[in-house]
Amino acid sequence: MKKLINDPDDVVDEMLEGMVAAYPDQLRRLPDTQVLVRDDAPVDGKVGVVSGGGSGHEPTHGGYIGDGMLDGAAAGDVFSSPTADEFEELIAACDGGEGVLAVIKNYEGDVMNFETAIEMVEMEGVEVAQVVVDDDVAVEDSLYTSGRRGVCGTIFVHKAAGAKAAEGGDLEEVQRVAQKVVDNVGTMGMALTSCVTPEKGEPTFDLGAEEIELGIGIHGEPGTERTDVMDADAVTEELTESVLEDLDLDEGQEVATIVNGMGGTPLMELFVVNDRLQELLADHGLKVWDTWVGDYMTSLDMAGCSITVCAVDDELKELLSAPADTPGLTVQ
Amino acid sequence: MKKLINDPDDVVDEMLEGMVAAYPDQLRRLPDTQVLVRDDAPVDGKVGVVSGGGSGHEPTHGGYIGDGMLDGAAAGDVFSSPTADEFEELIAACDGGEGVLAVIKNYEGDVMNFETAIEMVEMEGVEVAQVVVDDDVAVEDSLYTSGRRGVCGTIFVHKAAGAKAAEGGDLEEVQRVAQKVVDNVGTMGMALTSCVTPEKGEPTFDLGAEEIELGIGIHGEPGTERTDVMDADAVTEELTESVLEDLDLDEGQEVATIVNGMGGTPLMELFVVNDRLQELLADHGLKVWDTWVGDYMTSLDMAGCSITVCAVDDELKELLSAPADTPGLTVQ
Repeated sequence: MKKLINDPDDVVDEMLEGMVAAYPDQLRRLPDTQVLVRDDAPVDGKVGVVSGGGSGHEPTHGGYIGDGMLDGAAAGDVFSSPTADEFEELIAACDGGEGVLAVIKNYEGDVMNFETAIEMVEMEGVEVAQVVVDDDVAVEDSLYTSGRRGVCGTIFVHKAAGAKAAEGGDLEEVQRVAQKVVDNVGTMGMALTSCVTPEKGEPTFDLGAEEIELGIGIHGEPGTERTDVMDADAVTEELTESVLEDLDLDEGQEVATIVNGMGGTPLMELFVVNDRLQELLADHGLKVWDTWVGDYMTSLDMAGCSITVCAVDDELKELLSAPADTPGLTVQ
Repeated sequence: MKKLINDPDDVVDEMLEGMVAAYPDQLRRLPDTQVLVRDDAPVDGKVGVVSGGGSGHEPTHGGYIGDGMLDGAAAGDVFSSPTADEFEELIAACDGGEGVLAVIKNYEGDVMNFETAIEMVEMEGVEVAQVVVDDDVAVEDSLYTSGRRGVCGTIFVHKAAGAKAAEGGDLEEVQRVAQKVVDNVGTMGMALTSCVTPEKGEPTFDLGAEEIELGIGIHGEPGTERTDVMDADAVTEELTESVLEDLDLDEGQEVATIVNGMGGTPLMELFVVNDRLQELLADHGLKVWDTWVGDYMTSLDMAGCSITVCAVDDELKELLSAPADTPGLTVQ
């Protein structure tokens, strides 16, 4: 196995230590946990916004902790949900007295453990609201999912909810804008290669030398189609058309988009994808308000990309462009 | 070949279009060139700071165009120098009347073409200064290099020079701080896998399934040693000790560091490397002032990393932490 790791059992612990060491003024690790919170958590009088899930999707979620986005995030083992106890510690540490919004990607383990944690902290008097993100338009139900999977659209949820909380919104308002993103966002991904988990040390799934998979999940869950290698334009068309068919937007609608790298794909290729994406969105009569290109929600070393489209109104535009200062995303 | 590209001959053109489409308010492409400049170039009364080189290292260099860093950058074909004509257009477009600093990575083609361009624009009355970055401590002379190669330390040069220009420094001052970084920075890289160029479509060099290469260049140029796979701690020790031996810093010296991904390595692994790096720097009695972790100067889809260390004084600390707003780096 060729990875820059030590003992696979230590990879999450060492990653978290390396993150805190890189951003000592921004991040703090709760003792004896895999939970990171902003250094000044809890922020008195502000709604807390938290998330979490399996590791291997960096900068998701810990990389989005900071002013204007998340107050904290729990990191599970690679591709495994954090425990209910860790979610409980996370929520409790991020409650500044105004309640906490939990942003949950729709995987059975995450949903179950987050909901158990919410029951526990509610008994301690913490007010909690939640949204479940299920933006992956590829498949209904999946290996780890009832309904659709939560993928890169989650980053827009973090951004909008975090901005609303930063500007003083109450828990109901923060939940409302988070849900508004969930209701208006769609994503579809694809893989050129499988990821390799540290524990297994070999590809999670077999993909031939001339094969790609469309609609792949961020843990390598099966997609919609295996097909021969296609060029970037054809891949972009497949992903974009699937997302737009699902969203069914009116002509003239403004949208925000993400061209997301899966971890093993260089930025050069993501820009090539974006070149075609912008043409396609224009062909559909959509107005691109903002575009993000980079590695936002990855799948270890998988080569591939996903395309996210979110319909935006004035409120979401203001929230998505509000200032944020986190290791993974800075908006001025 | 598994890449998100179309015709390999179009990859740089389509990448540049995709970049401008993603950042239409920040970037502008000079017509019929592979040159990007900031949308408002030239900035009257400010020293221009420009760079450039072969494509395939994104976000280097075009991704660092914006307030507080570069005014423009020329993109050559993949791993090939831009032409002298393109460098000439770049410099001319970024001269706001106070002269232009050219930041050149030390490769024979880049140096020759940049210097030819400088002669041409000087005949047109543009004042130009230059620095040549040669931070790679691995090898003297190389496939494309007399002397040492210029690699990821170049990003600190962009940042310091860009900040000095933004605060109103004259050409001599901007060159001086750029040279100060060059004189105080060292980098060493390694590869787990070869990169694959779009044109060739197969690995640039052969590396066995259980082999890695230390001291690799960002175009796959030979390094110092091929060795069996090592764990992240051992790799980090090899790279860090080589850089520190070259820099020969006094105990108590403050440093800025970059843990740079080569394009195919996930962020998780870079944080694992950073965990060990911070311990090593402390063991050497060095004080880490700032740490950057991410993909700053890549080599297409190569898996691997490099470690950069730069000794900083009060002036460099102020310049490296000054505001910058570019696609690839934002500092608030």
